[in-house]
Amino acid sequence: MSYVDLGYKPEETDLICEFSIEPGKGLGVKDVADKVAAESSTGTWVDVTTTKPYVKGLGARVFYIKGKTVKIAYPLDLFELRNVPQILSSVAGNIFGMKAVRNLRLEDIDFPERVIRSFRGPRFGIKGVRKLFGVERPLLGTIIKPKIGLRTEDHTRVAYDAWTGGCDIVKDDENLSNQGFNPFRRRVVRTLEMRNKAGKETGEVKAYMPNITAETREMLRRAEFVKRQGGKYIMVDVMTVGWSALQTLRDEVLGLIIHAHRAMHAAITRNKKHGISMLVVAKLARLIGVDQLHIGTIIGKMEGKRSEVTDIEDEIEERIIKPDIKNHVLAEDWFSIKPVFAVCSGGLAPKHVPRLVKMLGKDIIIQMGGGIHGNPKGSLEGARVARKMVDSL
Amino acid sequence: MSYVDLGYKPEETDLICEFSIEPGKGLGVKDVADKVAAESSTGTWVDVTTTKPYVKGLGARVFYIKGKTVKIAYPLDLFELRNVPQILSSVAGNIFGMKAVRNLRLEDIDFPERVIRSFRGPRFGIKGVRKLFGVERPLLGTIIKPKIGLRTEDHTRVAYDAWTGGCDIVKDDENLSNQGFNPFRRRVVRTLEMRNKAGKETGEVKAYMPNITAETREMLRRAEFVKRQGGKYIMVDVMTVGWSALQTLRDEVLGLIIHAHRAMHAAITRNKKHGISMLVVAKLARLIGVDQLHIGTIIGKMEGKRSEVTDIEDEIEERIIKPDIKNHVLAEDWFSIKPVFAVCSGGLAPKHVPRLVKMLGKDIIIQMGGGIHGNPKGSLEGARVARKMVDSL
Repeated sequence: MSYVDLGYKPEETDLICEFSIEPGKGLGVKDVADKVAAESSTGTWVDVTTTKPYVKGLGARVFYIKGKTVKIAYPLDLFELRNVPQILSSVAGNIFGMKAVRNLRLEDIDFPERVIRSFRGPRFGIKGVRKLFGVERPLLGTIIKPKIGLRTEDHTRVAYDAWTGGCDIVKDDENLSNQGFNPFRRRVVRTLEMRNKAGKETGEVKAYMPNITAETREMLRRAEFVKRQGGKYIMVDVMTVGWSALQTLRDEVLGLIIHAHRAMHAAITRNKKHGISMLVVAKLARLIGVDQLHIGTIIGKMEGKRSEVTDIEDEIEERIIKPDIKNHVLAEDWFSIKPVFAVCSGGLAPKHVPRLVKMLGKDIIIQMGGGIHGNPKGSLEGARVARKMVDSL
Repeated sequence: MSYVDLGYKPEETDLICEFSIEPGKGLGVKDVADKVAAESSTGTWVDVTTTKPYVKGLGARVFYIKGKTVKIAYPLDLFELRNVPQILSSVAGNIFGMKAVRNLRLEDIDFPERVIRSFRGPRFGIKGVRKLFGVERPLLGTIIKPKIGLRTEDHTRVAYDAWTGGCDIVKDDENLSNQGFNPFRRRVVRTLEMRNKAGKETGEVKAYMPNITAETREMLRRAEFVKRQGGKYIMVDVMTVGWSALQTLRDEVLGLIIHAHRAMHAAITRNKKHGISMLVVAKLARLIGVDQLHIGTIIGKMEGKRSEVTDIEDEIEERIIKPDIKNHVLAEDWFSIKPVFAVCSGGLAPKHVPRLVKMLGKDIIIQMGGGIHGNPKGSLEGARVARKMVDSL
């Protein structure tokens, strides 16, 4: 049985994947596309005697091949709704390890309506976050630096300086969780005290995003603690924590905005020939329902070219996504799933603000760590300079 | 401040990482190693005013550079014990996305004793699994094929044939979870009935590994259901589910053997220049405590060369791991963490058994899907042929 059917017109209920394929030795793109569609639906490396006529309807169909670009349509019945790991194990599972492929990249997934509607998406999203702060400009955040090592008292002092200088948000770094030099609970209590103080003094809403990254139950306990202490936010390293725990957080942590850091994503997303695109990662994060997501900076210390970053921003902020063949973007309709607030972070300085906003619009959270705490006059002054740039837009 | 200190002799308490580095344009390996060590410990892209003298002791140290191979020692205090996501966010986080690197691969992590001892490791491991079956030969498993699409009654019939033909274990495939054509609970109930029947008829111990892959709470509910129905095993797609939820499973699912499928691993492990090695993935799985783990086949449909697969097997089955510079293996002492049973799966046929056992020893679980159900005489005969090969060793 062949899984290639170039005359096939996908049904509205199909899930569609776009892959870039570099075939293994002696094989063509079509051969490999056939094997990929088989392995990710009903096939294996040989015909089996155990198949039934009714199974054929569940086969994936390769319906588009152009150069290395291949599109495959998967019948909806292959998937369990509200189950990101199952969807990934299907369309992004064994296929990456097949000898038949030399390189394989999952570029995008177009989810049908029933899959989209089976997820909750963000509870707050852009509007909910803006409601907390009551401003329409880009939000200004900082990451406490040095990224790890400060004791709690020093950590909170840096936070206080950043807030009073003009930052809206103070955030832990991705590798700070609950270490001896700065234990989680103590840090949350003290930093939120400083948040309250800075809020009163400036007359502005200030927020703290403590990093709760850990095993699922422990994360839930930490989130609960943050809530009891009057926190409004949690942050979590979504890639290292994983999809199952992220969904548990979204389902069970009520009333806290979820900030998603993407540490480790580039291990899987960076190679343009092999792996999974950041676009797919971002879509899964929106489906499950993070409220804020790191998308790149274009101009900072992290890689990510302009069209890539703007495509990711559009994908998480718009309702209707138009296909873009050149940039490997499939169509999508997000229906009632709310937009996610895009976060730009990594090597940004105040001088970058105008260009950043010109490229990405006002619906971004601009985070600066070194760009604020590297100011020779200190964090207070660094935050003032950064805020002035944001206010001058 | 430089993070390169080639005269540094790592402390016993340090966590050590080996990376392969391909520098970005205009940079040397040493420059990039310095940036990697900074970004994964206390540094960022500029000097900050907020640092304190006591923070310096937490800096990572590049202590070995030879060609593209770099070793970095991280002080233990940087890490939270029993927190795999935090460890990954530290040593395998932002660094993959830095413009300064062209390609970067985390080859191995040598965990110090306190990190090793903070995890539980497998509850059963090789000995526990062998105790269930009461045999010393390689175990024989099958995956129900076609991999997805069979209705429950047909699924159970194939399972029954495989067991009576001689398989010890029957396993769901990685993309089968709880779909309409074969709902989870019904499948578990009926398949376990068949397991009991086949067990009585053959006088052998038979086992079923239902795939519980889902959101954390839902996985726990499914595991609980399996246990109530008399199941001994669960299987889970560890890469798509993620580390936090896996640890929750290990902590809370008492009395069930955990079979770890690695679907999607090759998206991150396959490229030899960029990403994270399967060796690291396997170590994390052992630390957290899966009982069985897919490690590759050498001779099947999935890539993975001989030394790579045998290194992974040694890593999960031995107590003391000797360093092997050529193959990027660091030393390790697993202390009291039990060995994990290695699983070979993917394109295997009965004829492969002798070579497989010659290369990997008897402590393997040999799984054949197409190799059994592709037998022209059917699954019963396919299982008989496979079992005969195993018994003839």
